[in-house]
Amino acid sequence: MNQRLLVIGGVAAGPKAAAKAKRCAPEMGVSIYQEEGEISYAGCGLPYYIGGLIKERDKLIARTVAQFAQDDIQIKKRHRVEEIDVAKRMVSGRNLESGEPFADRYDRLVLATGAYAIRPRVDGLNLENIFSLHSVFDADALLLTAHSPQVKDVAIVGGGYIGLELAEALTQMGKKVTIVEMAPQILTLFDEDFAGILQQYLEKKGVRILTAEGLKAIRGQNGKVTHVLTQTQDLRADAVVLSLGVRPRVDLAQKAGLKIGETGAIWVNEKMETSAAGVYAAGDCTEMTHLVTGKKVWVPLGSTANKQGRVVGINVCGGNAVFPGVLGTAIFKTFDFSVAKTGLSMKEAGREGLHPIQAIVRGYGRAHYYPGGKESVLKVIAEKGTGRVLGAQAVGEGSSDKLIDIVAMSLHGRMNCEDLAAVDLAYSPPFSPALSPVIVAANVLMNKMGGDLGWISASEVKEKLETSPGNFQLLDVRDPKEVRGKRIPHSLSIPSEELEKRLGELDKNRETAVHCFSGLRSYKACLKLKHAGFDKIKNMDGGILSWIYETEKGGSKR
Amino acid sequence: MNQRLLVIGGVAAGPKAAAKAKRCAPEMGVSIYQEEGEISYAGCGLPYYIGGLIKERDKLIARTVAQFAQDDIQIKKRHRVEEIDVAKRMVSGRNLESGEPFADRYDRLVLATGAYAIRPRVDGLNLENIFSLHSVFDADALLLTAHSPQVKDVAIVGGGYIGLELAEALTQMGKKVTIVEMAPQILTLFDEDFAGILQQYLEKKGVRILTAEGLKAIRGQNGKVTHVLTQTQDLRADAVVLSLGVRPRVDLAQKAGLKIGETGAIWVNEKMETSAAGVYAAGDCTEMTHLVTGKKVWVPLGSTANKQGRVVGINVCGGNAVFPGVLGTAIFKTFDFSVAKTGLSMKEAGREGLHPIQAIVRGYGRAHYYPGGKESVLKVIAEKGTGRVLGAQAVGEGSSDKLIDIVAMSLHGRMNCEDLAAVDLAYSPPFSPALSPVIVAANVLMNKMGGDLGWISASEVKEKLETSPGNFQLLDVRDPKEVRGKRIPHSLSIPSEELEKRLGELDKNRETAVHCFSGLRSYKACLKLKHAGFDKIKNMDGGILSWIYETEKGGSKR
Repeated sequence: MNQRLLVIGGVAAGPKAAAKAKRCAPEMGVSIYQEEGEISYAGCGLPYYIGGLIKERDKLIARTVAQFAQDDIQIKKRHRVEEIDVAKRMVSGRNLESGEPFADRYDRLVLATGAYAIRPRVDGLNLENIFSLHSVFDADALLLTAHSPQVKDVAIVGGGYIGLELAEALTQMGKKVTIVEMAPQILTLFDEDFAGILQQYLEKKGVRILTAEGLKAIRGQNGKVTHVLTQTQDLRADAVVLSLGVRPRVDLAQKAGLKIGETGAIWVNEKMETSAAGVYAAGDCTEMTHLVTGKKVWVPLGSTANKQGRVVGINVCGGNAVFPGVLGTAIFKTFDFSVAKTGLSMKEAGREGLHPIQAIVRGYGRAHYYPGGKESVLKVIAEKGTGRVLGAQAVGEGSSDKLIDIVAMSLHGRMNCEDLAAVDLAYSPPFSPALSPVIVAANVLMNKMGGDLGWISASEVKEKLETSPGNFQLLDVRDPKEVRGKRIPHSLSIPSEELEKRLGELDKNRETAVHCFSGLRSYKACLKLKHAGFDKIKNMDGGILSWIYETEKGGSKR
Repeated sequence: MNQRLLVIGGVAAGPKAAAKAKRCAPEMGVSIYQEEGEISYAGCGLPYYIGGLIKERDKLIARTVAQFAQDDIQIKKRHRVEEIDVAKRMVSGRNLESGEPFADRYDRLVLATGAYAIRPRVDGLNLENIFSLHSVFDADALLLTAHSPQVKDVAIVGGGYIGLELAEALTQMGKKVTIVEMAPQILTLFDEDFAGILQQYLEKKGVRILTAEGLKAIRGQNGKVTHVLTQTQDLRADAVVLSLGVRPRVDLAQKAGLKIGETGAIWVNEKMETSAAGVYAAGDCTEMTHLVTGKKVWVPLGSTANKQGRVVGINVCGGNAVFPGVLGTAIFKTFDFSVAKTGLSMKEAGREGLHPIQAIVRGYGRAHYYPGGKESVLKVIAEKGTGRVLGAQAVGEGSSDKLIDIVAMSLHGRMNCEDLAAVDLAYSPPFSPALSPVIVAANVLMNKMGGDLGWISASEVKEKLETSPGNFQLLDVRDPKEVRGKRIPHSLSIPSEELEKRLGELDKNRETAVHCFSGLRSYKACLKLKHAGFDKIKNMDGGILSWIYETEKGGSKR
């Protein structure tokens, strides 16, 4: 009898595993059980479907049932698997259309049960016009409501990727959007400074953002939502999108006695085998190894699901493929900003006890003289001492995707800053500055590690300006034109070309932080000051670019 | 007495070395000798200056003499260094303005003498309106002539990067451009197929391209050029741009007795030290190590010059920086195509005895359902057996730069295909398909290495169709709509979904190549045919995407 492969879950990892298995072993019998009424759809495309950029719903469907049938893969939609008997190698469940029970045997089983959206525990969740965005049906429902002109104010609960993607989509539709985030910052996987840059940008685009505001309750009238109550606010809301994140869907696995990992997702080895013989898992329901820390993590992503699906497809046919792990690389777009990350943030690296240092540089996408270039701010993080690259973040209108991919590859290669500073990337004026921003950041990190120059973060500068103004001064070495546009309150302005002549204006006894736009001119100014005998000099990381606090307009005060 | 640093050459590597040295050791005396009347200009920007995209000449100047002076770096323009006495640590030469001789002593000397444009040995070079494009003055001269309405036909001699960049600039200005290339293909650092894709594109844009045509002579009237004579053609030309490539400028080094490497460029070690004590070299005049082959190569590029300049700047101050080498990464833009390469081509890998295999895939820049995506064709090359990644090429309107940078990083990390298939890159629909084209290519390479399926290149298919039509058949499994648009002559068309029913139309005894658009459907079809008992089945690399030969329009013949 031919080998029989059953796949539970029909969105990303499941169909990929099935298709690859069928190519490796055409004689294998393959069926996919899918609880929902759609299969093989692009979950990551839903915000763009809401926003109207993707107009045809069909485009989100990667492969239809008929296309699977052509490859001799049977799709069982609206079939819920309710039990797995790993000893007998049987699954059983219910046809959700007919209510009929079913049972099926397998030689190999793939769990691709995905994740579910977290629901908050508050009153009012049963009101109309409350949505989450996890399946294509959620999107259909939200889209229908969002098109109603009666729906003017929308609250998005949760300031993660999907919430921020939706903020754009809904703002473009003319809605007044408020984001309610429980944590002290949006985008908690990013460092505070970069989340702050994004927050300022979104606020300029008309999105209201409330941080450190937990959802308390949702109130309504006539069965429809009208208000969202947070710790301190009572917000009008004609619709609410719950975007508090997801959790792995492991109930079936748990019931079958499969090992659940420390992250709460299904434990698998490098071959994507679960703890039960013949049973594999792939996609959002599994945990994985973080390749920087070596620890188990749960990072659900479509790209990972695809890679894991392929590995499982090979291995169910007796192959020997492995999935080594992830870096936590992620990217999303909101308005014209691309926001991306790979590896560890400063916070995360600190929690791992790694003594991280950071370089913040301008990520311009072209040679300075080539018109039309866009800019992102790039942060690269390394371990002090060893120089090992630990991670990066990029935010802005520039090629955040390319910059982060380059750093992600350096993490795979376990490079240090010196390695990274020497990489041979594609340069020509329309595509990159002669030195890629990644290389510039690596050089800054080496300067930081090698030199005797001190560094100070924007948040430390802010604190010192407030708490010890008598012992501390902040020197701004930008040009007067730049200073007129925007300056940090209480800073002293001396343009770098006048610095040597005007040294007398500085107090040698005070600790002195220096900043410019992004950190290069201030670095040079620090070296000059050092040379001139100032010894309490520190360069401010990332310049005014990463100053996310209050600024003032107007001429320099001195 | 303070240490004295002299730098010979003021375009890219020289100024970079000087500036970095001055930051590392502010007390050092630093002078730059520059033969030309401009310093620190962006050589790579010249084609865009010609094309009018960069309107202000000043934008090409990265730093002025005054800016250098501010950093206490002395610039000696129009000073030609004619001799170096390495024993006495002295240089001497002539002020080209005044004619006066000069001499100067050094503790450390940096040679950054760059490269010069190759001049062909033909008659007529002294005619007016013959240009090269090496310095900003060359660009000024060409620009002036190109703006004349009398200049209608322009011949570009040489089909390398700069010639092809200029082809766009001059075509956009309304000139009739002909490229004359001696080799059998333009872009000789690329494989024939990818050079062919670019050539077809350029021809569509109105650029005439003659390959395998050596320049024989240039003819003129009244002192001005009128015709270019090649082996077989007599071309009208009101202007000629000589773009035959460059050679390292090593005469000064040679005269001083410095070691010249096997590539003809100045030999340096990893610290960029020449064979003479206290003398360093950086930029286009030096040779370097190719990090894939380990051999010495000469690849002059602005990005490399910048990195080397920094290394030299550190080392002249007693530092210990190294420049490990290059991958030969390069990119350029012509019209809307970006054309990029890293590592070895198939040809180059073959010459190294490495048994290369290739995967050619569609490099779409977004998820398939996200609108506005552009496409490049991507080729990734690996070593058969070990699976080690050797190089890549990309050409098209898509993100060739990002794709090539990812592969370049994999070369730095000495990855094999399995490593590359598992990398965690930034995915979200606006930025990438769920599986990056690089990952897809790595998977194809693994399929090639692992499977028993045969592969055949487009050029082999062409040869077999011509030489043994009775023993060979080419099956096109694309949809009828695609076939109607463009088909390979003598191919049989059976859409993949009809394949199982129509197997009888194929001759089992003939060797059978299968193609589709890019190679995925044909791969699946090959597996089906294999399963159906066909044993002489080969998948055609890169599908019709990489078929650079004649095609025909119209309905399928069967």
